[in-house]
Amino acid sequence: MVGPAERALGVHRVLEPPGVLPQAALRVDPDPEIGPDEVRIAVERLNLDAASFRQLAEAHAGDGAAVRAAVLRIVAERGKMQNPVTGSGGMLIGVVDAVGPESPLGLAVGDRVATLVSLTLTPLAITDGLARWDGRSEQVPAEGTAILFARSIAAVLPVDLSERVSLALLDVCGAPAATARVIRRTAARSVVVLGAAGKSGCLSLAAARAAGATQLTGLVRDDAEAGALRAAGLADRVIVADATDPLAVAAAVGTPADVTVVCVDVPGAEHGAVLATADGGTVIFFSMATSFAAAALGAEGMAADVTMLVGNGYTPGHANLALGLYRSNAGVRGLIGSRIR
Amino acid sequence: MVGPAERALGVHRVLEPPGVLPQAALRVDPDPEIGPDEVRIAVERLNLDAASFRQLAEAHAGDGAAVRAAVLRIVAERGKMQNPVTGSGGMLIGVVDAVGPESPLGLAVGDRVATLVSLTLTPLAITDGLARWDGRSEQVPAEGTAILFARSIAAVLPVDLSERVSLALLDVCGAPAATARVIRRTAARSVVVLGAAGKSGCLSLAAARAAGATQLTGLVRDDAEAGALRAAGLADRVIVADATDPLAVAAAVGTPADVTVVCVDVPGAEHGAVLATADGGTVIFFSMATSFAAAALGAEGMAADVTMLVGNGYTPGHANLALGLYRSNAGVRGLIGSRIR
Repeated sequence: MVGPAERALGVHRVLEPPGVLPQAALRVDPDPEIGPDEVRIAVERLNLDAASFRQLAEAHAGDGAAVRAAVLRIVAERGKMQNPVTGSGGMLIGVVDAVGPESPLGLAVGDRVATLVSLTLTPLAITDGLARWDGRSEQVPAEGTAILFARSIAAVLPVDLSERVSLALLDVCGAPAATARVIRRTAARSVVVLGAAGKSGCLSLAAARAAGATQLTGLVRDDAEAGALRAAGLADRVIVADATDPLAVAAAVGTPADVTVVCVDVPGAEHGAVLATADGGTVIFFSMATSFAAAALGAEGMAADVTMLVGNGYTPGHANLALGLYRSNAGVRGLIGSRIR
Repeated sequence: MVGPAERALGVHRVLEPPGVLPQAALRVDPDPEIGPDEVRIAVERLNLDAASFRQLAEAHAGDGAAVRAAVLRIVAERGKMQNPVTGSGGMLIGVVDAVGPESPLGLAVGDRVATLVSLTLTPLAITDGLARWDGRSEQVPAEGTAILFARSIAAVLPVDLSERVSLALLDVCGAPAATARVIRRTAARSVVVLGAAGKSGCLSLAAARAAGATQLTGLVRDDAEAGALRAAGLADRVIVADATDPLAVAAAVGTPADVTVVCVDVPGAEHGAVLATADGGTVIFFSMATSFAAAALGAEGMAADVTMLVGNGYTPGHANLALGLYRSNAGVRGLIGSRIR
């Protein structure tokens, strides 16, 4: 028997193996009939995770029709779009077309939304054979239905921003929210952001400033990024170093900071981040390339008394914070605009 | 040219690739000749990290001779004992037999010490072929030399405790220290420890109580461990569940806790830990088997507003805290005594 707490996580939709969470399931039930605490979305577009799309394209030698057939097969077999090789999914956009009376998500029929939980745990049925997709881009026009559970997250797409901008912001909105929270809780003043010219990096700088930080350093990888970040005016100081070279990071940063935010998407930034952080300070790891062992053992090995956080993609209010920073901050708009063209 | 700050971290001992810190190195130089800021230790015993030993034992189907050969091969190839699969190491004990004139560690020749930095960054040469080890325990009698850098940590072994006890305590002393700090900083009252009958688990329970927590739950894997933990009197409530089964953990825990401490040494405990933790609460991951991605994506997928900490093996005062908990707490003595026999 599935209790309400387990239903909220979608356990009642798991077909195989029984008793696991939807993300770990081999197969979930995408039945469009919703339960009292569920929401159904009429799908418009899937955004496949970049790693997943690359794997599919390479496995099929760039043959778009074969990639399309592979995605259709995965969704038909698994009831969700979770690449069995990479384990990753993506997100989707659509319009709410049914809301159960007990759904706590606050959505209404007709809302245009992006799901902020992964496709790897979202029940999905495709009804158009992906006929409008050529299999050559991770942006997949699609018709069908997706299900949100009670404990899911979806953001209503703002009417004042383009879909591409909204998606770019929602994709990384956990980083600025967590950065702001840490700065408020610890009363930090000095902040270093590794990968500061990227989407999550520039939003984290803007969030740090808004949360009261007064000495902001943005570390970027080359002079082109340094120029763009300087023009954006988000940092008090812009430095250029290879984030994966701990000694270069330490030398460029100089006096260690109260808080270091890791937004680079390459492995090996853990030790530089620790060295950039003062004793008693905090490192927030937002890179999915972070190694738990490298972080834990690195700090211990350097006798570094730093608090290290696993960047949680969810903080209450994260979507609105990121959208608000974009609307209010010309520097953020400039940097993000240049990334999504 | 390697400057003094870099020397203090051991950069001058890195052979491959150049310019990284010793922990990230594929190979370090274990030459027993010391520099002016280094300390040499005559090794007596290695204590392998539990996750590393388990991986080696499983990879060799419990064949002790094969495990021994694997450890010898790793140390010979890398100049340090860092398991290439788990990335983890362990610690060692020995006697200080040379101290450079500029070493800041305060050690003297003849001191019997345990290293509190990981074996993953400690230059190590083994000279006895591990002849006294049967490959069946993570405690490895060994002869050879190890090097400490200026920025290392070693604890002089207390005279009132046996070597095995001291080593067991110092190996895991980061966990109780971090647990105590989080409970003090967040004023947490309810705490769940996953893997509560183990060394780090029972010390974390005792530290949580001493730091002011009032509702302590110990989760263990079977009735035998439950009996031992009940007899130790360290927890207000003892529950039995598979820590790698998120729904079983959630059901056994019931009302989520302010703080969850993960001390199990198997992969897959991330989602159960998140579900065991209340919104606004904190998860401290001490298992070296923790997956950064599973923690980050799991919390996001469940819309769980939890702070997740990478357990840092170093907190100031951690060694004395653990030794003090052992001396003052009969329950800790009973559980740790039964584990080290």
